[in-house]
Amino acid sequence: MKPLSPTDQMFLWLEKRQQPMHVGGLQLFSFPENAPDDYVAQLADQLRDHTTVTSPFDRRLDSRFAQPVWVKDEHLDLEHHFRFEALPTPGRVRELLSFVSAEHSHLMDRERPLWEFHLIEGLRDRQFAVYTKIHHSLVDGVSAMRMAQRMLSPDPEQRDMPPIWALPPRERRSSDGEGMSLWRSIGQLIGESGKQLGTVPTVARELLKTINQARKDPAYDSVFHAPPSILNQKITGSRRFAAQSYCLNRIRAVGQAYGVTVNDVVMAMCASALRTYLMNQDELPAQPLIAMVPVSLRRDDSEEGNQVGIILASLGTHLSDPADRLMHIHHDVKMAKDRYATMSSEEILNYTALTLAPAAFNLLTGMAPKWQTFNVVISNVPGPSEDCYWNGARMEGMYPVSIAMDRLALNMTLTSYRDQIEFGLIGCRRTLPSLQRMLDYLEEGLAELEIAAGS
Amino acid sequence: MKPLSPTDQMFLWLEKRQQPMHVGGLQLFSFPENAPDDYVAQLADQLRDHTTVTSPFDRRLDSRFAQPVWVKDEHLDLEHHFRFEALPTPGRVRELLSFVSAEHSHLMDRERPLWEFHLIEGLRDRQFAVYTKIHHSLVDGVSAMRMAQRMLSPDPEQRDMPPIWALPPRERRSSDGEGMSLWRSIGQLIGESGKQLGTVPTVARELLKTINQARKDPAYDSVFHAPPSILNQKITGSRRFAAQSYCLNRIRAVGQAYGVTVNDVVMAMCASALRTYLMNQDELPAQPLIAMVPVSLRRDDSEEGNQVGIILASLGTHLSDPADRLMHIHHDVKMAKDRYATMSSEEILNYTALTLAPAAFNLLTGMAPKWQTFNVVISNVPGPSEDCYWNGARMEGMYPVSIAMDRLALNMTLTSYRDQIEFGLIGCRRTLPSLQRMLDYLEEGLAELEIAAGS
Repeated sequence: MKPLSPTDQMFLWLEKRQQPMHVGGLQLFSFPENAPDDYVAQLADQLRDHTTVTSPFDRRLDSRFAQPVWVKDEHLDLEHHFRFEALPTPGRVRELLSFVSAEHSHLMDRERPLWEFHLIEGLRDRQFAVYTKIHHSLVDGVSAMRMAQRMLSPDPEQRDMPPIWALPPRERRSSDGEGMSLWRSIGQLIGESGKQLGTVPTVARELLKTINQARKDPAYDSVFHAPPSILNQKITGSRRFAAQSYCLNRIRAVGQAYGVTVNDVVMAMCASALRTYLMNQDELPAQPLIAMVPVSLRRDDSEEGNQVGIILASLGTHLSDPADRLMHIHHDVKMAKDRYATMSSEEILNYTALTLAPAAFNLLTGMAPKWQTFNVVISNVPGPSEDCYWNGARMEGMYPVSIAMDRLALNMTLTSYRDQIEFGLIGCRRTLPSLQRMLDYLEEGLAELEIAAGS
Repeated sequence: MKPLSPTDQMFLWLEKRQQPMHVGGLQLFSFPENAPDDYVAQLADQLRDHTTVTSPFDRRLDSRFAQPVWVKDEHLDLEHHFRFEALPTPGRVRELLSFVSAEHSHLMDRERPLWEFHLIEGLRDRQFAVYTKIHHSLVDGVSAMRMAQRMLSPDPEQRDMPPIWALPPRERRSSDGEGMSLWRSIGQLIGESGKQLGTVPTVARELLKTINQARKDPAYDSVFHAPPSILNQKITGSRRFAAQSYCLNRIRAVGQAYGVTVNDVVMAMCASALRTYLMNQDELPAQPLIAMVPVSLRRDDSEEGNQVGIILASLGTHLSDPADRLMHIHHDVKMAKDRYATMSSEEILNYTALTLAPAAFNLLTGMAPKWQTFNVVISNVPGPSEDCYWNGARMEGMYPVSIAMDRLALNMTLTSYRDQIEFGLIGCRRTLPSLQRMLDYLEEGLAELEIAAGS
């Protein structure tokens, strides 16, 4: 029996029918060479034999004296968690994304360990997929995607590799990507306050205090300038997931042409896609959209070496010229990072707090934002640069599946793998219709920068 | 815009994460002769063209002055409702039942019309399936199964048959199977009271009044004698669906051998299956289980000709001899029906009310039953006796998928089709582990009666 941390409790509080609080990862694999046609079915049979479930996958929620606790599930029903499934004809990526969209919309059963592992056959070209779904209260770190990486190996010859639920348990480490997600950061913030915040109203009151203090401080005035937009409406319960790989070398070349970072170019692609998407609906705000971007801040005096901050960056969506937009983003990001360089740890914490507080306050209370600090989350998580294998099957792509929330209807998370940048977009299907078009707009955003650079 | 009836509101009130309030139907089809291998994918393409959605499938929930109303969904997203899906290898009925178990566990998105239509490919032997899921607040009648029948025809040559959501709308008729389900009956009961019962506490208070009045009346004493059992625990959110066809002629032969009805034999099969299932878990109550069975009461003086009542029948699960158990059930059912014959319409209503009131009270308040009137619902819905076709594909089986509820963890609904009795069992997967074994126990229950009859 283990009590839930205040952070983990928050993921449960925030969850409602329209707002599931699980994260996911989608991995695409090629069959090993010479594998039989029924390779995935055979794999499914092997996976079913892994009936010894390790921590944290054996934990379910319970309550003791009205406080939520984790207990070991003594009647774990592996068939409920491990699901072998299939795509309908013609088994394209399109069918795969539809499948994940539907599955990611479903709440998980709270009486059981809060995870699911979907092995998916029926993809064309001798491929298969794994979609992993884990409640944010259950795992550390950014996402299920990262956890799912633990079961992979750089060795194509390695076999007998267990699935994620049967891996030897790993210690929770505080440096383990903590804070790289919006919600982990808010959790830290609540945790750092050193108080036991047992209820939603208490947390909301603390957040409101933080916001009101900050708004009196002229130094923080610039933080409250995100325009209202359709991205910041209440959401409904169904999701659209869209994912695609983009060529890292193309992005790198654009970065070099303009003397900016890969991350700047990626943000410019997002800015261009958002601009096109909103313009097509006649919903582009006159003021630039503001993105919240978690960044890692390396400091010499930090043993852990991986302190995490939050930057707010204008996406320059009011600018029609793609090169202008890129440079606007580059300068805004640089300014935000430079600001951190002059800040003490305590100042960083304060800044993070007030950046996130309005969003957290809105989420906890359901009240519409009076002070919006950002419109969209863009999260860039480094991934492996070399080929990864699972029992000889090469991973061809890995896409984060994050969380859409009230007033934050779109989340753009990306990672790197080999020579690819892997985008995973998750959004409310009703608030943001035809979200999948943004995949093309991201490509167009890259192409227009290439053209502008004369490459 | 149309306000919800008190009954329909009740289905929304009762719904929670662990207790979805939708009903479903599973239909199994054979490919038409000479159909190509990708027949189901072609069918899916044709179905996607039916973009004109008729009532009630175009209705979504909204609220006006804090009252729930139905409004037309102006942004209906057919891709959300019509889903083309596939079973994994090897595509047996087992995989189909797993699929339906998982899907039936998921809540539907309340911001959209509350229905889903799943076309399922990947079954062996050139078969495919349709699983229809409709919220109980949206449709009249017993189940989605019945509605799904509307799209079928006895003519194997007929083509261009639209799916259920594109059929011409039909008037809601009060005689249309109303009351054949437990919840419709409670709804009638609340409706009949002639009051506007706008809230759960008001309804619960009315029900409690009914119960307390009845308990003072010695004539009704016998009603409160259902033993506690594991069937009557709180449920969790995940379901197990099990379904199978049984040979009607075998059941009929047993009925003739004992001079009892087909329904008596079916109930004896259920009794035997429940007895075996509970004995294997060392959970068989010493007192016989009580089944609640909706029955249709034909009356000469009734224009409508189809008044509905509820009978409580002992399942004789304390008796070890199968023939004794069958005769016990036969006499108990007959006694209950004879009682109705002497009752006025008002008395029938009172009797129904007090039979259902404890279950309804428990469901609405979440309080554990002090007075249990029944342990399990066994519902027998007549179905078509001739072959049915959908665009040339012959239906081979149709299975009701009903609702499991707190303190009523198992629902056994069956229907007839051609020379088959089609059982659909739905239960809480945690409260009632390995529920699918009951399919074998039903068969054994029939076989032991055949042996006892010397046939």
